Amino acid sequence: MDYDAHTFFLHLLTILVAARLFAELAVLVRVPAVIGELAAGVVIGPTLLGWIEPDRVIVMLSEIGIILLLFEVGLETDVRRLVRAGPKALLIAISGLLWPFVGGFWVSLEGFGRPVLESLFIGGALTATSIGITLRVLADLGHHHSHEAQLVLGAAVIDDVLGVVLLAVLDQFASGGNISPADAGRLLTFIVLFFVLAPIAANLISHIINRLDRISQAPGLLPTAVVSLVLFFAWLARQLGAPELLGGFAAGLALSRGFFLPFGLAVAIQPHFAERIDQQMRPIVYLFVPIFFVVVGLSLNFRTIDWRSPFIWEFSLALIAIAVVGKLVSALFIRESWSIRRAVGLAMLPRGEVGLIFAEAGRTARIFDDDVYATLVIVIAFTTVTGPLLLRLHYQGFRAKGRFRK
Amino acid sequence: MDYDAHTFFLHLLTILVAARLFAELAVLVRVPAVIGELAAGVVIGPTLLGWIEPDRVIVMLSEIGIILLLFEVGLETDVRRLVRAGPKALLIAISGLLWPFVGGFWVSLEGFGRPVLESLFIGGALTATSIGITLRVLADLGHHHSHEAQLVLGAAVIDDVLGVVLLAVLDQFASGGNISPADAGRLLTFIVLFFVLAPIAANLISHIINRLDRISQAPGLLPTAVVSLVLFFAWLARQLGAPELLGGFAAGLALSRGFFLPFGLAVAIQPHFAERIDQQMRPIVYLFVPIFFVVVGLSLNFRTIDWRSPFIWEFSLALIAIAVVGKLVSALFIRESWSIRRAVGLAMLPRGEVGLIFAEAGRTARIFDDDVYATLVIVIAFTTVTGPLLLRLHYQGFRAKGRFRK
Repeated sequence: MDYDAHTFFLHLLTILVAARLFAELAVLVRVPAVIGELAAGVVIGPTLLGWIEPDRVIVMLSEIGIILLLFEVGLETDVRRLVRAGPKALLIAISGLLWPFVGGFWVSLEGFGRPVLESLFIGGALTATSIGITLRVLADLGHHHSHEAQLVLGAAVIDDVLGVVLLAVLDQFASGGNISPADAGRLLTFIVLFFVLAPIAANLISHIINRLDRISQAPGLLPTAVVSLVLFFAWLARQLGAPELLGGFAAGLALSRGFFLPFGLAVAIQPHFAERIDQQMRPIVYLFVPIFFVVVGLSLNFRTIDWRSPFIWEFSLALIAIAVVGKLVSALFIRESWSIRRAVGLAMLPRGEVGLIFAEAGRTARIFDDDVYATLVIVIAFTTVTGPLLLRLHYQGFRAKGRFRK
Repeated sequence: MDYDAHTFFLHLLTILVAARLFAELAVLVRVPAVIGELAAGVVIGPTLLGWIEPDRVIVMLSEIGIILLLFEVGLETDVRRLVRAGPKALLIAISGLLWPFVGGFWVSLEGFGRPVLESLFIGGALTATSIGITLRVLADLGHHHSHEAQLVLGAAVIDDVLGVVLLAVLDQFASGGNISPADAGRLLTFIVLFFVLAPIAANLISHIINRLDRISQAPGLLPTAVVSLVLFFAWLARQLGAPELLGGFAAGLALSRGFFLPFGLAVAIQPHFAERIDQQMRPIVYLFVPIFFVVVGLSLNFRTIDWRSPFIWEFSLALIAIAVVGKLVSALFIRESWSIRRAVGLAMLPRGEVGLIFAEAGRTARIFDDDVYATLVIVIAFTTVTGPLLLRLHYQGFRAKGRFRK
């Protein structure tokens, strides 16, 4: 009831309407809807119209958006297929982290004469894969149940875990100067433990929710309880050092129809219950998810970039080459058809918000100057947009030749 | 992805779980669920455990909650019955505003020797009816479609409009010293105009949404579009000087199944569309609404009250008597059965968040000292809790005697 709410309503309204408008336009010109939502953020944000800045309240809503998106992805994941894709996904993730990191580091250090620490952070910013954008694109294109989607999902999840460990190690190096393999190993162990135990716990809790739902006298238990479950595991993930969105993913996995675990550790979700969760969570997910992508667009401020600087142009082009080639190459190491290798490589391209987090970490620690930060923003924006566009061309080509149909 | 989100997730989680827990407990002991949600706020807030303060992000979510609640109420309102109840509702609202205002003013001025301006604000704080709590209680008790609910709904809406005008007038008086009837009249005209035109506009927009929903290629248009519509009318209401929640109510009215207007100004909502709106908005409403009531509970900080002060005790008791009698008396002026008069009077008792807004306005303008503010908090808390409890007893009494059945 105060003036704050008045502005907030207008901002949220603008974000929701712009996201929808640009998403529909994107689909009209046969581009993934998520590109439209990112564009909406760029248009209404500081880059163009300057209507909306990423305010704290909006950013918090976008954080709910990304964990709910990962929850939805988890909900639709077939655990057996994901586990089967595991070894290949691990290979993709590790090589997809290694090449951009080493390449980015080397080019910065040797080619552009940047200091060691700065070169390490630049390499780090190139390693990330935006799990959110990647999975949204595959869903937008209708390929989120394909074999390559399983590989990409697994690789993106592992990528996110490794990225967090890498950031923690670099942060330690930046502040203390010493890299401790023991600390990194402990962090990795915590995250892996979380990832094994969280779905079991979430599965057990979901059965309690199902029982409570049947005896509850006050309406509306299901949406509140499921959102609480997702928030809890996101919080827990972070508490243990893992990315929050992995908590959302773990909760989604545990509530998916096909969830199973060895030794009967988990009880299958009843089809009726799964259907109700799906039906009631979908509107909430649809409401929050676009806010996340618009906020990513808002955070890409192109206005701060000095476009006449030759350094920014040259450095950007060099890093873009490494960022693209590094991910495409990483898919070559798996034994799959060329079309699947290409799809996986392209799907891993978008750096999105994860790249921005690295860039922000480097800027706030005063490791980058403004020019290097601007360079990274260009590289991140380029990969974020071209990945989905190329992926769409890839699938369209296959559809035209009649070799790929769902 | 920063620590802020980490704390925010934990707070939101705590609020959702506490609200659900206390609501279920309330229903178990046969008390309206909303009392449980208010109690949850008192328990986890500064009064008892001190886990959560009403932070800006949480308050913004609660503001969405209250406008969505009013949207839902509007959606379930039968416009014809509301219009038919209009004249009686107006009578209830005006006398329900007059008695507590005059009584509160007089007791403060004469009985307790408070200054004129302070006495005016104290009277103002007693006038409000918490439209949110009143309507939730009627829904919790299963009487939200009864005749008295129509009277109460109409009266509460008018009450809210008059309360805003009164607060504006008093604010002007407090700052400038001059009360301008022209300004008050203009504000009232704006609000009435909004209330006549907004449902027509919202109805037209909803037909556009229906058409877009059919041609949209990207999923999830409906929840985003309807929430945007509600946010827009809440914003517009505020822009014209009306309370935001009336915007939500107007949007809900326009989308209700039975919506009609003279001269064919509005087109009836198609049953299939109405059903889809209902189905998709319900989980979102259930998620946000409890946050509002918990935040009201959080805002009632009993710890700041000096319970040994005889002044606070005496003044509270005097004002409680006026607050209760004033509303009960206001229902006597309508020609209805005694049972309906009693139900209407009891339903109008809770002052809730609207009373707190008056009290806050008086405190921030330094019109009240801490003791008077504490007194008002006690009066507001008392009426907010006893209203629903007495209403429940009222209905139970009737049910036990078999005279009232739905």
